[in-house]
Amino acid sequence: MSEWRNDPITNRWVVIATERGKRPFDYKEIVEERQNKECPLCIGNEEQTPPEIMSCRESGSLKDGPGWWVRVVPNKFPAVSIKGESDIFKRGIYQVMPGVGAHEVIVESSDHEPGLDSQTEKQIEDVIWVWQERLQDLRKDVRLKYIQIFKNTGSTAGASLEHTHSQLIAIPQVPDEIKKEIKGIKEYADRHGTCVFCDIVRLESENQERVVLDSDHFLNFAPFASRFPFENWIVPKEHQHDFGLIQEKQVKDLAKVLRSTLRKMNMMIKNIPYNVVLHTAPVNVLEEHQYHWHLEILPRLTIMAGFELGTGCYINPTPPEVAAQAFRETEEIYEFQNKKQEVFHYV
Amino acid sequence: MSEWRNDPITNRWVVIATERGKRPFDYKEIVEERQNKECPLCIGNEEQTPPEIMSCRESGSLKDGPGWWVRVVPNKFPAVSIKGESDIFKRGIYQVMPGVGAHEVIVESSDHEPGLDSQTEKQIEDVIWVWQERLQDLRKDVRLKYIQIFKNTGSTAGASLEHTHSQLIAIPQVPDEIKKEIKGIKEYADRHGTCVFCDIVRLESENQERVVLDSDHFLNFAPFASRFPFENWIVPKEHQHDFGLIQEKQVKDLAKVLRSTLRKMNMMIKNIPYNVVLHTAPVNVLEEHQYHWHLEILPRLTIMAGFELGTGCYINPTPPEVAAQAFRETEEIYEFQNKKQEVFHYV
Repeated sequence: MSEWRNDPITNRWVVIATERGKRPFDYKEIVEERQNKECPLCIGNEEQTPPEIMSCRESGSLKDGPGWWVRVVPNKFPAVSIKGESDIFKRGIYQVMPGVGAHEVIVESSDHEPGLDSQTEKQIEDVIWVWQERLQDLRKDVRLKYIQIFKNTGSTAGASLEHTHSQLIAIPQVPDEIKKEIKGIKEYADRHGTCVFCDIVRLESENQERVVLDSDHFLNFAPFASRFPFENWIVPKEHQHDFGLIQEKQVKDLAKVLRSTLRKMNMMIKNIPYNVVLHTAPVNVLEEHQYHWHLEILPRLTIMAGFELGTGCYINPTPPEVAAQAFRETEEIYEFQNKKQEVFHYV
Repeated sequence: MSEWRNDPITNRWVVIATERGKRPFDYKEIVEERQNKECPLCIGNEEQTPPEIMSCRESGSLKDGPGWWVRVVPNKFPAVSIKGESDIFKRGIYQVMPGVGAHEVIVESSDHEPGLDSQTEKQIEDVIWVWQERLQDLRKDVRLKYIQIFKNTGSTAGASLEHTHSQLIAIPQVPDEIKKEIKGIKEYADRHGTCVFCDIVRLESENQERVVLDSDHFLNFAPFASRFPFENWIVPKEHQHDFGLIQEKQVKDLAKVLRSTLRKMNMMIKNIPYNVVLHTAPVNVLEEHQYHWHLEILPRLTIMAGFELGTGCYINPTPPEVAAQAFRETEEIYEFQNKKQEVFHYV
């Protein structure tokens, strides 16, 4: 079993794989291991993953057999495990906790497609519903305090399998990044009496300069202090603290906006590596109604190097205003191509 | 000129290159641009860099000519610029600051060597003295509040040039990561009356399990909550808050320890990508005597992906105990080889 360890200087938590620690030799082998292997996420290879947790599948089809279009399985090499207590104990001056948590893989298509952007809106809607359902199910486990849903696309963004998939890691403490956001949201609310995300959505929507797509229920924009080139966020227009509360009309709209931005990113830079990170309120702690959930889409064209690791500051060579304009110009091409295709279909 | 921008939610500062923002097309070209070009850091190519700031060079040799063995030049594509005021101003709900700072390159050898580990101890001593001298010089500029010295080796660790070099970015605010450390150090001191780094050095040295090398003035060890496989820190044994105060005997010892750990890393995994990050007390603000400067050596065998970006937590597949043991075993081979070589020389 793995172990959560706390850094006594920064209070940072790290999951350490104590059971089978990777020695230098293991790192040399990793690249070769991955080549010439069948994709374990493809339809027909269901026996290559642990038994499924849930799936969207044809009625009458059997669990762990074909007939599915979205499938959730435990990660075969989980960072954390669902067994054990979440009590912190001392080891000398250090704090440790058993490696409690959940680590799941959401297979977003039964076809071996590399990207979520090549899926239909309907398929993406189902993926979003699955994210929501896993969040609602896992929060019943009171040991878990945060459920991180994320997606890595491209090897530079951390994807070890090409087949389109997202992941979920549920952890027994509220992570630093979320704590920092909550602190910032509260400080802003104390000063201004309003939600900083609601204010940003309103101002960015008025200003338009950094807007990528202004939809019915979401604003998709390049944030003012973007860390990464072409970074963009999708923020619900109405205040909602918890992604678990998402409504049907929002899911439909979110699928459309997410598909659109990922398609535009791929049109701008082919096979662009990126992460999608869901930020939502913690679970099983004081309910943070002031939080405002959102999706962060983080293209990985720059490398986090010594400066970023040392300071926590970022250097971004593409201003968000330039990024948003590039997105909007791509949208025109994208719409033009869609129309052309429609004509083609009619002929 | 670039611009510092503040994220109103997390209070995170980002440098945005506003002058010549990189558009999608620029990212497609980057890889090709770098190929088939002469190395601008090699001896004889001095005219390819901006004029040198300082150098270790043969007496009588001319500035920006050959005869040097360590050379400091401004970064040709600086993230920040030395011109301008460091006043924060408001833009709507956002905070901005001109892109004030300094961005320098420390060329660590006149030969086109890929690593600092292939240099002699004497050469590394000179590099350390140059780091110290640049720190002492730049702190005279009262606009600057932190001087980040770092080194990226290998393209996965962010190095865009192969020729061994380190960098320095001086910035007009105390960065988040250092603030977090200072907060942790003070909280620990309030509870225990001692310095957390001094306590860690003492306990790790007693315990030995995570020790890589125990030297006269430094302890080199794998930290308890290592974020990265084979992460190791070099911490001065005697409390010293500011790297600028380093003494001659310490420089000699640090060169030895740094060279040794980098050599062992390369023996374990050939061409291992890594960052070296100097952590030291801020400058031109309240002098933080409680701080304890140190070097963090961060191998980049894992990728910071959606989970790490979303939470700030890390997953490390190599426990520090396993890492330290691997370092110690490599040391035996390393010493054995050194001895063999000595014998060879005597024959």
